[in-house]
Amino acid sequence: MSEREIVTDVVIIGAGPVGLFAVFELGLLDIKCHLIDILDKPGGQCAELYPEKPIYDIPAFPEISGQELTNNLLEQAEPFGPTYHYNQMVTELEKQEDGSYIVKTDDNQTFKCKVVVIAAGGGSFQPKRPPVPEIENFENKSVFYAVRRREEFRDHDIVIVGGGDSALDWTLNLAEIAKSVTLVHRRDSFRAHTDSVNKMRALVEQGKINFELGQIANLEGDNGQITGVNLKTKEGEKLLPATRLLPFFGLTMKLGPVADWGLNLHENLINVDTEKFATSEEGIFAIGDINYYPGKLKLILSGFHEAALMAQAAKKIIHPDQKVVFQYTTSSTSLQKKLGVK
Amino acid sequence: MSEREIVTDVVIIGAGPVGLFAVFELGLLDIKCHLIDILDKPGGQCAELYPEKPIYDIPAFPEISGQELTNNLLEQAEPFGPTYHYNQMVTELEKQEDGSYIVKTDDNQTFKCKVVVIAAGGGSFQPKRPPVPEIENFENKSVFYAVRRREEFRDHDIVIVGGGDSALDWTLNLAEIAKSVTLVHRRDSFRAHTDSVNKMRALVEQGKINFELGQIANLEGDNGQITGVNLKTKEGEKLLPATRLLPFFGLTMKLGPVADWGLNLHENLINVDTEKFATSEEGIFAIGDINYYPGKLKLILSGFHEAALMAQAAKKIIHPDQKVVFQYTTSSTSLQKKLGVK
Repeated sequence: MSEREIVTDVVIIGAGPVGLFAVFELGLLDIKCHLIDILDKPGGQCAELYPEKPIYDIPAFPEISGQELTNNLLEQAEPFGPTYHYNQMVTELEKQEDGSYIVKTDDNQTFKCKVVVIAAGGGSFQPKRPPVPEIENFENKSVFYAVRRREEFRDHDIVIVGGGDSALDWTLNLAEIAKSVTLVHRRDSFRAHTDSVNKMRALVEQGKINFELGQIANLEGDNGQITGVNLKTKEGEKLLPATRLLPFFGLTMKLGPVADWGLNLHENLINVDTEKFATSEEGIFAIGDINYYPGKLKLILSGFHEAALMAQAAKKIIHPDQKVVFQYTTSSTSLQKKLGVK
Repeated sequence: MSEREIVTDVVIIGAGPVGLFAVFELGLLDIKCHLIDILDKPGGQCAELYPEKPIYDIPAFPEISGQELTNNLLEQAEPFGPTYHYNQMVTELEKQEDGSYIVKTDDNQTFKCKVVVIAAGGGSFQPKRPPVPEIENFENKSVFYAVRRREEFRDHDIVIVGGGDSALDWTLNLAEIAKSVTLVHRRDSFRAHTDSVNKMRALVEQGKINFELGQIANLEGDNGQITGVNLKTKEGEKLLPATRLLPFFGLTMKLGPVADWGLNLHENLINVDTEKFATSEEGIFAIGDINYYPGKLKLILSGFHEAALMAQAAKKIIHPDQKVVFQYTTSSTSLQKKLGVK
């Protein structure tokens, strides 16, 4: 992993609908953004939890799916050229003497920016840990909950556990480079797309991968390196030799490192004012489901409003010398130029 | 005009985008609404001033026209069966001893309701008065700025002044029932739709109506009843016999009677809190462009947020015994039932 530093105006933590709309509102004020998200795609909960489920309370959409909403917001933000950093979690936030911030992620990416916007929804989506004794001793060494770098799995004996899309997709994908792949699931039916399940079964028939019905009992190995996975099966215990384990037990929502940044919190939410949606730290704003103020409703439409007011306040920090002239997109030719309207 | 009283939960003053979305948010909480607007259609400024002009900052719409936005919001509100009252201005607002309100309009309509929501945008659209001496003595007697009741113009000698859609539309419409119609405009070119202009010219050729190039100099008549309109033309003064005058000089925005209701104001805007968007009077809320609070931006998307938070507070006044359980449209089957989702 290489150490890289990106210098930008604003880092937005979270690429859900509210983070995406913040790009648009900041863009109208000539502010450039980088977005960081722990997921592998934009849209946050909308795209992760209910991409195809209709939402009925987005204003002027009698019905829209989470994925359509995400796509529309991406298109609306596009004229301002945001940069998206996926599969990363912000782990550190450090205030510099000049008032700017250094933001670091668990993928060794560093950002220097004047303003941080926390639009992290319910917090970080984090993988659920399976109930396996001492699994924490092996985590991030030989047990992983996500594939960040595919090469780390080349020529390994891999055990993948789960019945959803992540488990099936990575079973198919890693079969190409692994020494061996064994998929373990407690039932012979899968939540994953039928197409993936059919492909998996074909590979099993061709003897290219293995499938085992069962659950993990415990792990063998030491110093963080597993050597085998003990399964509980109907026929009793069974040892699978393994040097990599990928359990996909779904995601859970945690506030995550945000809790450690010294911001004033209200029951795990970040206190903000309703004028700027500023936190207790100058230069850090919080918008969307992660903030709290009297009257707060966890609605996407409220996050949109919060993004608009935040942008005006961020502008004063980023371009303190420029007068903020409030303009309407309907009538301002300068805003329309920024939007690429012809 | 008959005296009628309607009893309902909420009267919304203004059927612009924010008033329409308030119907939706209140409807989700089982609250019924009547809307009153001075215009002859829903959509407020959006539909009146820029129906075909694109708006770029409605969240998740990279581009939408004022009319499309209005249509979408009407559709989204429809499951809650709102009643729309157009061409009326609220003139009186009276608090009753039981805390409810009596709302009266200039069309003699009376409402009894528990909550009043002022969503009147920049205020009332009011017709511009033409610069004619003593015209105010004839207003609402023989000089009208809008056609509220078409029958009042039957068999009259009507002079219509203006070059926009209102002037042309009423020229064509009233030609069918008037004794005579004369259209007056200062130029021989028109802002109105070409189609209407062509139809008007055809009627002139057929001798069914008259067209005069010129401007009103003064009016003849007494006791509120005009007998003639003196025109300034290139050829000098010209007297048109007339018993009705309809000057269409466009609309101007005025705060209107809202200013007289004893609410705390901030530079002609209504002060509200940011928790409930309540005014200084219990039971009266103000949302959208007409309200003020620190950070306020006159954006449609902010009005949507304000409507959502207002609805929660209105619910406590209208159904004080019901617990407010906050639910999401994506997951709540009871909300989906109200929305008519199958």
